[in-house]
Amino acid sequence: MISKEEFTKLHSKIATYIKRTPIMRSRLLNGLAETEVYFKCENFQRMGAFKMRGATAAILALSAEERAKGVVTHSSGNFAQAVSLSAKSLGIPAYIVMPSSAPQVKKDAVKTYGGQITECEPNIKAREAAAAKIEEETGATFLHPSNDLNVIYGQGTAAKEFLEDFPEFDVIITPVGGGGLLAGTALAVDFYAENCKTIGAEPFEVDDAYRSLESGKIEFNKTTNTIADGLKTNLGDKNFPIIQDKVSEIIRVEEEEIITAMKLIWERMKIVVEPSAAVAFAAVLREKEKFHGKRVGIIISGGNVDLSNLPF
Amino acid sequence: MISKEEFTKLHSKIATYIKRTPIMRSRLLNGLAETEVYFKCENFQRMGAFKMRGATAAILALSAEERAKGVVTHSSGNFAQAVSLSAKSLGIPAYIVMPSSAPQVKKDAVKTYGGQITECEPNIKAREAAAAKIEEETGATFLHPSNDLNVIYGQGTAAKEFLEDFPEFDVIITPVGGGGLLAGTALAVDFYAENCKTIGAEPFEVDDAYRSLESGKIEFNKTTNTIADGLKTNLGDKNFPIIQDKVSEIIRVEEEEIITAMKLIWERMKIVVEPSAAVAFAAVLREKEKFHGKRVGIIISGGNVDLSNLPF
Repeated sequence: MISKEEFTKLHSKIATYIKRTPIMRSRLLNGLAETEVYFKCENFQRMGAFKMRGATAAILALSAEERAKGVVTHSSGNFAQAVSLSAKSLGIPAYIVMPSSAPQVKKDAVKTYGGQITECEPNIKAREAAAAKIEEETGATFLHPSNDLNVIYGQGTAAKEFLEDFPEFDVIITPVGGGGLLAGTALAVDFYAENCKTIGAEPFEVDDAYRSLESGKIEFNKTTNTIADGLKTNLGDKNFPIIQDKVSEIIRVEEEEIITAMKLIWERMKIVVEPSAAVAFAAVLREKEKFHGKRVGIIISGGNVDLSNLPF
Repeated sequence: MISKEEFTKLHSKIATYIKRTPIMRSRLLNGLAETEVYFKCENFQRMGAFKMRGATAAILALSAEERAKGVVTHSSGNFAQAVSLSAKSLGIPAYIVMPSSAPQVKKDAVKTYGGQITECEPNIKAREAAAAKIEEETGATFLHPSNDLNVIYGQGTAAKEFLEDFPEFDVIITPVGGGGLLAGTALAVDFYAENCKTIGAEPFEVDDAYRSLESGKIEFNKTTNTIADGLKTNLGDKNFPIIQDKVSEIIRVEEEEIITAMKLIWERMKIVVEPSAAVAFAAVLREKEKFHGKRVGIIISGGNVDLSNLPF
């Protein structure tokens, strides 16, 4: 495991390639939540999500020879864009395996950031096979979106910045999908805060993290019927032990609560956030009494949303 | 007319009641515009629009006795909310005349900010009559949303802040509806910038400002068939002379261009802006060659938009 000094060093290494995102507040949302809420706006991060941090950290951890051969990942979401853009910033090739069913807008975004797309059948086996073939042919290094220690550390730098700006948080809440952001946040809270808890938030519909913490082993989602499309993935063996060790609890929310929280953030804070990013605020609204009188930090995970397909 | 010293003083007087809004940039939007564009985000202003500045300035210009009797306006848009909220901040009553046809969401917003609503028939005569009646009965002072010198000065403080942060602008562009923001901006540019032009932007569908500058007298809109609902109003005798004297030109844009610019701002900058607020950026995209190599400041006028009725 990384030390505090190494974590601090990793943050300065990636700082050139990422944005130090602003923190926002809203009197009206504080009123509704009946507590003080601060939002760390990773929707304003480069390519629109915190994933830029982890992708950059993982690429910078490679040797010069490895880097020269490029990186490969399979993703239809924000991580594909993050790997493409950070590879471009570092001048190396990025090979992105995407299911043929992925929306054109997502393929276009990857292309804009310089990623080289290989299309495959829309199932996990085909994705893994296509990525493995690219690894073999090009010598590129495979990057996992959440179950990779360097990715986890990179994601944790958002919480580090948050705590530098507001050292007195009682709790920091993030959404949990694959577990990278939550595990990284918990590590950063451990390193840089005193008396601050880390809480995860996820939809009831994909409550694998909640059930995993209950049972003590990684549980899987049988269905993925949630609007929070970034949270459908499962925990992995690299991030689960960190989550088990350092996360206080997982709060689950209903789909309607996600939509309400998302709409409130758009209407009142005037920022575009994706459904997954609204899950943490939905958790605060759902369990108000738990947060009463606390200073609450929420990481807004991203803002990449299809504007022609909004839930309101 | 106000002096530079008085303008500076007015800004410090209202500063307690308004937000110093952030300035944002986007590499991608710079690429599309082929120039350097800075956005002053008045969508993050209190109540979501620059109108908060003018309303506060107008109320602070009243005597203690006048203030005690309150203020009255007729508006179904941002000015109603601005007067309500600044009156509330200053502890005085705000009487708002709204057409009975105004959307419930706008009535609710005014109520949230403490405004006392009087409903009337949805025509300008009924609005004026209802406001006059309230003036008579309560002694409240009538505030005009754009044709009032203190309102104009207040709106100009956004450009003053903009120029304090970036003194080197070659041009500042604002949308033009009633003319308060454009006139105030032109005054501030005159006071605080060197070699900077002020340009207005408006839809072809409501190009009264363009035609007024051409003809040399205030022209009116025959139809108001634009998505930019904040720009349907006409210039007035207080702001038109300032615009005539200090504004370089008015650029007109098509409805499609407004929607494209609005969508780009939402998608790429991750901020919620109302259609009227996208008109200035639409003008830059339309007349790229004019702005090539210039430093362009755009005032994003507001972010109050009905999320259930978006044009994309």
